[in-house]
Amino acid sequence: MSHNAELISVGTELLLGNILNTDARFLSRELSKLGMNVYYQTVVGDNPERLRRAVDIAKGRADIIITTGGLGPTCDDLTKQTLAAAFGKKLVFHEESAERIRDYFEQNLHGAPMPENNLQQAMFPDGCVILPNDWGTAPGCIFEADGCHVVMLPGPPRECEPMFCAHVVPYLQKLSGETIRSRTLKLFGMGESAVEARLRDRMNALTNPTLAPYAKTGEVELRITAKAESDAEADALIAPVEEEVRAIFGDLIYGADVDSLEEVVLAALKEKGLTLSCAESCTGGLIAKRLTDLPGASAAFEGGAVTYWSEVKRGLLGVPQTLLDEKGAVSEEVARAMAEGARTVFGSDLAVSATGVAGPDSDERGNPVGLVYVALATPEGTFCRELHLGQSRDRVRTTAAHHAFDMTRRYLAGLPSELKV
Amino acid sequence: MSHNAELISVGTELLLGNILNTDARFLSRELSKLGMNVYYQTVVGDNPERLRRAVDIAKGRADIIITTGGLGPTCDDLTKQTLAAAFGKKLVFHEESAERIRDYFEQNLHGAPMPENNLQQAMFPDGCVILPNDWGTAPGCIFEADGCHVVMLPGPPRECEPMFCAHVVPYLQKLSGETIRSRTLKLFGMGESAVEARLRDRMNALTNPTLAPYAKTGEVELRITAKAESDAEADALIAPVEEEVRAIFGDLIYGADVDSLEEVVLAALKEKGLTLSCAESCTGGLIAKRLTDLPGASAAFEGGAVTYWSEVKRGLLGVPQTLLDEKGAVSEEVARAMAEGARTVFGSDLAVSATGVAGPDSDERGNPVGLVYVALATPEGTFCRELHLGQSRDRVRTTAAHHAFDMTRRYLAGLPSELKV
Repeated sequence: MSHNAELISVGTELLLGNILNTDARFLSRELSKLGMNVYYQTVVGDNPERLRRAVDIAKGRADIIITTGGLGPTCDDLTKQTLAAAFGKKLVFHEESAERIRDYFEQNLHGAPMPENNLQQAMFPDGCVILPNDWGTAPGCIFEADGCHVVMLPGPPRECEPMFCAHVVPYLQKLSGETIRSRTLKLFGMGESAVEARLRDRMNALTNPTLAPYAKTGEVELRITAKAESDAEADALIAPVEEEVRAIFGDLIYGADVDSLEEVVLAALKEKGLTLSCAESCTGGLIAKRLTDLPGASAAFEGGAVTYWSEVKRGLLGVPQTLLDEKGAVSEEVARAMAEGARTVFGSDLAVSATGVAGPDSDERGNPVGLVYVALATPEGTFCRELHLGQSRDRVRTTAAHHAFDMTRRYLAGLPSELKV
Repeated sequence: MSHNAELISVGTELLLGNILNTDARFLSRELSKLGMNVYYQTVVGDNPERLRRAVDIAKGRADIIITTGGLGPTCDDLTKQTLAAAFGKKLVFHEESAERIRDYFEQNLHGAPMPENNLQQAMFPDGCVILPNDWGTAPGCIFEADGCHVVMLPGPPRECEPMFCAHVVPYLQKLSGETIRSRTLKLFGMGESAVEARLRDRMNALTNPTLAPYAKTGEVELRITAKAESDAEADALIAPVEEEVRAIFGDLIYGADVDSLEEVVLAALKEKGLTLSCAESCTGGLIAKRLTDLPGASAAFEGGAVTYWSEVKRGLLGVPQTLLDEKGAVSEEVARAMAEGARTVFGSDLAVSATGVAGPDSDERGNPVGLVYVALATPEGTFCRELHLGQSRDRVRTTAAHHAFDMTRRYLAGLPSELKV
C-alpha cells in the first residue's frame, strides 16, 4: 500500500523568515527513501486556530501527518493540544516523561531549577506511543486515529533528526510495503532546456521509473526514480534507463549520486596520487574555497594564488610583463601562463587558472563581462577554454569554477579536454 | 488595510528534500518587513491537480498569493497554466517577452541555438503585468482576480530574489496604505542568546517600532521596524531606538543596513586608499572569495595566497621552517608570520591570515577542531586572535573569516583590536 505523508511545520519564526525549514527538507528526503510520497508541506505559525485548519486539510489528503515544532514548554507551544483536539483525543499526564524531563534538567543544566511549565511537555494524547527525546527535553509521540498516523516531533533539527531516525523510521518501515529508490546523474556542459529537449519523449513515456531534469547554476541533474517491492527490484528498473541516458549524453555526465564536480575531481586526484594547485583572478578564491569545503582536501590540494592585480600575477606566478602588456590580463596567453606559473610555484602535478571579466563593468581593454579564459597545466601540456558566461557576476564566477573543475576531471579521466556538445 | 499573503512553492525537488526552501524564507522575511502577514507557506510538487488544490485553499484564506517555481521551459513547469485556470484566465502569447528570451540566449549562450520550448515562457495569463527577468529567462507576472493579488516568480533564488525586490516590492507597497520601514543593525562578537537577554525587557515593551534579533552564522542582526503614514515619520520612530541599541552594544555593531563585514571592510579600505591581501590556510580561499564576491573589490584587494600545505606556507609566504617545526602550522606564531609574509609578498598596506583546524579531524599535533588563529599585519604591528569555533567545518571556516574581517574593520576604524564583550 502506498502512503501519502504531509509535513506540518509549526513555528512563527518560519513564517517570519527567521530560520530555514531544514526539518522539512530532512524529513522529505528520509520519507522519500522510505517510499512514502510527500505531496504537501505546510508551514503554519504558533496559532492554534490556523494550525487546526491546516491539520483538518491534511487529514483529508494524507494518511501520515508529521508535525515539527510547538512541543516546548512555552505558552505558544500548542501542537499536542491542537492535534489531540483535531482527532478527538484527551491529553493525559505521563509520569515517566515528567521524570525524564526532571533528569534532563539535573544533568544538563546543573543547579538551574526546572521551571514548572516544563511539565507541560509530559502531557500527551491519550493512547499514544511516546517517543523519548535523548537530545533535549520535549518528547515526541505517535498515535493512530481516523485512518491517519500522526507523528509529532520537536522543531530543533538536532532533536528532530535523531528522534526521527531512532523512533519514527522503524514505525514507518512497518507500514510500508514498497520501496522508492532514486539515482541522480550530474551533467555539465549543456543547458537544462537542451537536455530536456533531447529527453522529452522518453520522459513522457516513462512512468516507473520516472526521469526528470533539475537545473543548477551551470549544471543539470537528471533524476531517475523507481518504485518497487524491494531495493534490488527498484535498482533493476533504474539501470536500463541510466544506461540509456548515459548513451545520449556520454562524458557530459560527470557522476552519479555525487554532490559536485570538485568532489569528483578530488576523488580522482586522490586515486591517482596527483596534486593540484590553482591561480585565480576573476574567480577570486572560489576554486580554492570549493575544494577546501571538502573534508580531506589537503590530501591533494596544495594551495592557490589569488592574483587579482597584474603586479601579483607577475610577482607571484611569474606571468611575463610583456604578455600582460601585449595581450592583457584577460587573454588565453595569460591564463596559460598563470596555470603554468602555479604549477611551477606550487610544485603540483596539475594547476588550473581562471582569468576573466566577472563584471559588473567590462575591463579597461573593453573585454565584455562574462569573457573568461580557464586553463589547465599538466605534464602533457597546457589546455585552455575561452568562455562567454553571461552578465551575472555570481554566475560568471560559479560557472568559470565549474569549467576549471571540468577540465581537470576530463584530463584525469583521459577524456579530450574540449567539451563536445 | 492589513494583507494576508500565502506562499506556494512549486517543485518536486522540494518535496523530495533535494533542496532547501530558501525562497520561502527570503519572501517571508521581505513580506514581514513590508508589514504583510504570512499565515501559511505551502509546498507542492510539479503536479497540476495538487497545485490547483493548494491554490484553491490559498484563495480562501489569503488575499496575496505568491508562487515560486514552475515557470521554466520544461513540460513539468505548469504554474502559469494552473494559476490562470484557477482564476478563470486564458494564457496569451507575449511577443516582447519572447524577444527578451531570444536576446538572453543570444547574449549569454553565444552560438547555442535557443530550443523552441523556451517560448513557453512567453505565454501569460490574459491581462497580467509581466515582470521582466534580467537574471534568467523565465519572466514572472502579477494579476488581480477574485479579490486576490497573484504573483508568480521563478524558483531559482538568484532570479526570484532580485525580481521580488525590483518589481514586487513596489507593487505591494502601493497596496498597503501605510509605510513600513526597517533598519537592520549588524552585530559581531556576541551570541544571539546573550544579545536577546540584554534586550528582552526593551523588546517586550516596544510595539511601534518593534525590535527583534535574528541569528546568522556567527553574527546577529537586530531589526527595528516602524509603521507610520510617511517614511519620515517611520524614520523618526526608529532613530531613538537605534541610538539606545547602539549605546548598549557599542562598537560590536559594525553597520546599519549593510550586508556583511567584508562590505564594511572594502568600503573603509577604499575610503582610506589602503590595500589588503590575505594568506589563508583553514579558510582555504573563503576570505578572498568573500571579498571578490563584491563588485569593485579590485580597487583595494590585491590578491591572496591559499597555503594549505606547510611547504607552501614556507615557499610562498616565507614562514620560517623552524617556526613550522617548533610551533606547528596551527599556532599564533605561524598566523603572524603568514600575515606578515603576505604583506611583504603582495606589498599591500594590510594583510590578514587564518590558520586552524577546520575538521572533521584534529591535526597531527592533536590541536582540536575549531582552534583557529587569525592575524592582521599592519604598519603599526601585527595583531592576533586565538579562537575556539566549535565542531562544524562550515561554521569554523565562516566564523574564522568573520574574525579576519572584524579585525580589519576595527583597525581601520581606529578601534582596539580585541573584542571586549
